[in-house]
Amino acid sequence: MNLCPIGVFDSGLGGLTAVKRLIELLPNEDIVYLGDTGRVPYGSRSRETIIRYARQDAAFLISHGIKAMIVACNTVSSAALDLIAPGAGVPTFGVVEPPSERAAALTKNGRVGVIGTAATVRSGAYERAIARINPAIEVISAACPLFVPLAESGRTDAEDAAVIAIARDYLEPIIASGADTLILGCTHYPLLRDAISSVLGEGVALVDSGATTADYVAVRLREMGLLNGSDTPGERRYFVTDIIDGFETQASRFLEADVSGSVRQITLE
Amino acid sequence: MNLCPIGVFDSGLGGLTAVKRLIELLPNEDIVYLGDTGRVPYGSRSRETIIRYARQDAAFLISHGIKAMIVACNTVSSAALDLIAPGAGVPTFGVVEPPSERAAALTKNGRVGVIGTAATVRSGAYERAIARINPAIEVISAACPLFVPLAESGRTDAEDAAVIAIARDYLEPIIASGADTLILGCTHYPLLRDAISSVLGEGVALVDSGATTADYVAVRLREMGLLNGSDTPGERRYFVTDIIDGFETQASRFLEADVSGSVRQITLE
Repeated sequence: MNLCPIGVFDSGLGGLTAVKRLIELLPNEDIVYLGDTGRVPYGSRSRETIIRYARQDAAFLISHGIKAMIVACNTVSSAALDLIAPGAGVPTFGVVEPPSERAAALTKNGRVGVIGTAATVRSGAYERAIARINPAIEVISAACPLFVPLAESGRTDAEDAAVIAIARDYLEPIIASGADTLILGCTHYPLLRDAISSVLGEGVALVDSGATTADYVAVRLREMGLLNGSDTPGERRYFVTDIIDGFETQASRFLEADVSGSVRQITLE
Repeated sequence: MNLCPIGVFDSGLGGLTAVKRLIELLPNEDIVYLGDTGRVPYGSRSRETIIRYARQDAAFLISHGIKAMIVACNTVSSAALDLIAPGAGVPTFGVVEPPSERAAALTKNGRVGVIGTAATVRSGAYERAIARINPAIEVISAACPLFVPLAESGRTDAEDAAVIAIARDYLEPIIASGADTLILGCTHYPLLRDAISSVLGEGVALVDSGATTADYVAVRLREMGLLNGSDTPGERRYFVTDIIDGFETQASRFLEADVSGSVRQITLE
């Protein structure tokens, strides 16, 4: 039993897909969320800069006395988890391993697609994770740099000609490979699920990296005896590095719950 | 006569459109350029965060002993120029006034369109600038949040279905207004000039804010006696806040000149 909060960070809002699932699974746990909204996106930056930002994010959460940390950003999980986890002093989970395990279990034809930011794809992290689980699985990855700006500007509709044209271009190698399972290797991508499905067709199973990771972490914390055993609803605190206004509105949409009053702006630099 | 360099900053690469023209007009001037590539884009952030970043950018250039500063970022020029210019200690030029003057001179029907980032449009800066020049001119503005990500991901082709679908949506109010002149109120947008023209038709004059500002600054520096009077080519130094590699390649494309060896990475925080 451990009464400390669970820490979750992301470059922006996307990590809230993991938080939403975590709240469903572990409603009585306290959660501290950090969204680096003043420097989002990470996915188009260099590995060196991603590491610098991620270290600041992790240090902020650790200073809040967390008992476990979720790096709910695929870019950081792919490019820098090995550099952050050892120094964290608490169990640290990225969003690469859990969806890789699920995709490896789901695929019937041994071909798994992965889509993510430029940095995530460049890192090869999903290829390595899936090879560790089952080296016979072929992994086909594709960078989708415009998916985050599309999702953030609210263009996610499967009827939107621009969204479909861009999705077709990006997903072409996935379709060509015949993959029957696709990892949405960026926490923003579930917002584009309908458009992605309409381009790929119904036969391809989509694996949401944020929600899958929350499932995994809930099991692991229970195993490690780290849950708080409380029967009252947990407290959630949200920290952002740009102003609160925009975040409150969007976060309430992501979480389907009102977060007003529990968001604070901070400076990491 | 003044031998100090001219300082130019932008959130990223876009300001190089101003530098390119400046080099054409004033080949013997030294230039110090700062691109805040580690925190680009600014246009989707809050005014408060834009001001904080812009103050750091300006302080960096001023520490290099510049004789004049160009704020080659429409977002900063629109949201924060009044807060930066007074403390700069050198003549400081934004990219709002010069294109506003040119557009006011060019329009025949008194209707001028402005496109820019969300922050630029929200600021109303172009409306105010044009009203000061000629209050009879009607200004129709439209935010184009996906144009920067499109340009940065290399999707600028006028034959690209996604680019055209997005441009049509964004430019619809401009077309509906019958504007005969459009200010490209973001230094990235000249890369999308062909696509914008193909949607608007040939009858609409496009005003490039970066190049127009360089024209304006060259005239003003001469008037103020601030040119260096040298007859040898100027030295250009480029500073960025993310790694150099990506910048060198893209900058060489923007400037149509090789910048390798003259770029350095720095930290502003």
